[in-house]
Amino acid sequence: MTLPAIADAASHGDVWPVFITSAAATLFVGVSLALAFRRPSFQLSLRETFILTTASWLAIALFASLPLWFSSPQLSMTDAFFEAMSGLTTTGSTVMSDLDQVPRGILLWRAILQWLGGIGIIVMAVAVLPILRVGGMQLFRTESSDHSQKLLPRAAPIAGWITLTYVALTLVWAIALWLAGMSKFDAVCHAMATISTGGFSTADGSIGHFNRAAIDWIVIVGMLVGGLPFILYLRAVRGDLAALVRDSQVQWFIGFCTVSALIMTAWLCYHMEASPLIAIRYAAFNTVSVITGTGYTTAPYDQWGSFAVTFLFFLMFVGGCTGSTTGGIKVFRYQVLLNSARVELTHLIRPHVVMTPRFNGEPIPSGIANAVRGFFFVFFAGFIVTALALGLHGYDFITSTSGAATAIANVGPGLGPLIGPANNFASLSDSAKWLLSAAMLLGRLELFTVLVLFIPSFWRE
Amino acid sequence: MTLPAIADAASHGDVWPVFITSAAATLFVGVSLALAFRRPSFQLSLRETFILTTASWLAIALFASLPLWFSSPQLSMTDAFFEAMSGLTTTGSTVMSDLDQVPRGILLWRAILQWLGGIGIIVMAVAVLPILRVGGMQLFRTESSDHSQKLLPRAAPIAGWITLTYVALTLVWAIALWLAGMSKFDAVCHAMATISTGGFSTADGSIGHFNRAAIDWIVIVGMLVGGLPFILYLRAVRGDLAALVRDSQVQWFIGFCTVSALIMTAWLCYHMEASPLIAIRYAAFNTVSVITGTGYTTAPYDQWGSFAVTFLFFLMFVGGCTGSTTGGIKVFRYQVLLNSARVELTHLIRPHVVMTPRFNGEPIPSGIANAVRGFFFVFFAGFIVTALALGLHGYDFITSTSGAATAIANVGPGLGPLIGPANNFASLSDSAKWLLSAAMLLGRLELFTVLVLFIPSFWRE
Repeated sequence: MTLPAIADAASHGDVWPVFITSAAATLFVGVSLALAFRRPSFQLSLRETFILTTASWLAIALFASLPLWFSSPQLSMTDAFFEAMSGLTTTGSTVMSDLDQVPRGILLWRAILQWLGGIGIIVMAVAVLPILRVGGMQLFRTESSDHSQKLLPRAAPIAGWITLTYVALTLVWAIALWLAGMSKFDAVCHAMATISTGGFSTADGSIGHFNRAAIDWIVIVGMLVGGLPFILYLRAVRGDLAALVRDSQVQWFIGFCTVSALIMTAWLCYHMEASPLIAIRYAAFNTVSVITGTGYTTAPYDQWGSFAVTFLFFLMFVGGCTGSTTGGIKVFRYQVLLNSARVELTHLIRPHVVMTPRFNGEPIPSGIANAVRGFFFVFFAGFIVTALALGLHGYDFITSTSGAATAIANVGPGLGPLIGPANNFASLSDSAKWLLSAAMLLGRLELFTVLVLFIPSFWRE
Repeated sequence: MTLPAIADAASHGDVWPVFITSAAATLFVGVSLALAFRRPSFQLSLRETFILTTASWLAIALFASLPLWFSSPQLSMTDAFFEAMSGLTTTGSTVMSDLDQVPRGILLWRAILQWLGGIGIIVMAVAVLPILRVGGMQLFRTESSDHSQKLLPRAAPIAGWITLTYVALTLVWAIALWLAGMSKFDAVCHAMATISTGGFSTADGSIGHFNRAAIDWIVIVGMLVGGLPFILYLRAVRGDLAALVRDSQVQWFIGFCTVSALIMTAWLCYHMEASPLIAIRYAAFNTVSVITGTGYTTAPYDQWGSFAVTFLFFLMFVGGCTGSTTGGIKVFRYQVLLNSARVELTHLIRPHVVMTPRFNGEPIPSGIANAVRGFFFVFFAGFIVTALALGLHGYDFITSTSGAATAIANVGPGLGPLIGPANNFASLSDSAKWLLSAAMLLGRLELFTVLVLFIPSFWRE
């Protein structure tokens, strides 16, 4: 919180005291807790790790909302919490508008939240979730720990190297955006929200505000970079550049984004009679933004006609690679699901042949395939419950369904007149905002991490 | 086809020659094929059974469409095929309007198609699908064949008894509807389309046309009866009435319908300020109609406001019990999915405890749980592909998504201004009608039965 305070003071803003106050409050609570519960040494049990994971994301969102709440008379506590949770989970749904009037400190704070959330989820996906075996993530335990090609044996150094990569990528993108014509401040904020596939912008019109092809393409590549497994960047830096190309997750993800962008381009050429060059720029930007769950926009894409709306709605459920900053169901799960379905189909006609679905060339252990299929069901169940709850608030079909999808898949804007890319979430009721905040957290922590706290036997000895 | 011919001739209609011609054509093709390929004895291989299943549903729909096509100048071949497929799959989506002007022979033929489709799918679910092990249906192989409480050991006699039950139930409902005020003809047609959870009516206003509480309630109970496992009726007739009550599928199905109807009642009282008695009648009718995939309507329920639309949309995916006439994902699959998810959650905190999800008190073999989870994914994949294809036709979000859902889950009406309960599918383009016909067949045959024909290794060797 001191960084936004400095930025604000430097730009002669008047919200820096708010950040200093919030920082002091946060520090006080943190230090008090640390002192009160300090022990010479401790080891987390599995259960404590589950509790700690959810509790820390909640606590960080809560304290992160303080400066937003204190500084903006138009933001209620609910709004501030929604904005902070949306930032930290790299969702990018916002309740704030007239961003050009908003103090720089606040804008930087929103970008920092996304940036922290992005690195937080990568480290979690590499170090914590595989141990918790959530939603098939143990598939990546093998990869990063007890595998023959083991990269770096323990979590802490991996986390360090990944953070370094993350900082480096952010710097590169900040410079690129600055060279492409953004102000230094905008470039830094957008670089942070791009590499984290977050989607908060410093302008109401999002990236569309800048209206430059170069910026659009830099951000497109940045969102794709944020959607790849960061662990592979480490390998690439260590000389194994081919690892990135060989990885089947990467192939699928890039292939899927390319095909989706081309389909959307064709639709724009056909339906909107756009010129191909314009069409591909807008199509690539907004499909990649939705697939990776970034949530930047360069156009009100829910006015691109029937197919575009339906297509973008379903693209919300895709997500990027595991170990990236993206949310959603994620590419590897679709690979596992499709491979399992193919094996199941073949099994129907060859009942006595033993077949195992494969991922990245290696057989998928049945426990993991089950976990992935279970995840798919629970994800849809969560989506449906959220959509119905929004329906109960009186929101129409597309607002309810796209609002639920965008929150649980950590995308950003919804679809339709209320929460579509041309609008924001400010008009929703308080309870809807709390509901969506919960859905964001649920989606970000891969559902099971949170849901496990709600089964009675979790709390039984 | 001779029955509608007789009905039409008796009511001094002029379409009976069409039915005679169609019957003759069908008979000629059928007898020719039978003679050309007759063998002293034969046994179907697994592969031949798959081919035969899909091929026979296609062939029956094709020949069933003949009288519709020949008799109605306003119906194209596409329309006639769509209507026949919608009838046979007990979907109940229609392209026909001004039904009071339509000859009785045609109305009866539509009802007969639904009735035949209903008994066809029950017999398939009891005798064929468990052998094909499609989507976890082998769970019911145990129940009806190699189980300790084996009821009737072979498929043929079971099919016979079930058909008898089906005829008896249809008769009972025809009489009840007649006593409640329908004409004899309407009572027979609606009884056939009720027990088969089909949904074709003889009036444009569907059951709402009759506007009698007694009729509504008789049909509600009829749809529920059509949604229960018919094999349990055999046990009930043989004295084991408790079997119906004990069955966990039945408990869930009835419980789910009751809760859904009550939720909708509350919404109608709150949102539409309806009186509770009116609300419960309309809520119960239309929710049960959607859950069971019947597709009768007594009100334009897509004008019941935000929550009702979203709620009814998701209810389309529910379905009834296996071995009933309903389509959709079906209750037993949700039970397996929920139980598996619960086991998976518990497993996260107790990694070393071996747990097995249960169904009806017995452990679910892992192959079946996998098949069910695979089915869920493939069902949604099919839904999404169909919705996107409808989007490409230029249909809006709610038409595309609800049209895809209603077809693949064999429900009937969609939602929204185009294909909602107050309208029909006539205005859709030809290719959309073929697409939806394919989706109906895919859903009716539990997807895998059809999809297996599309994997290359099916045709190899």
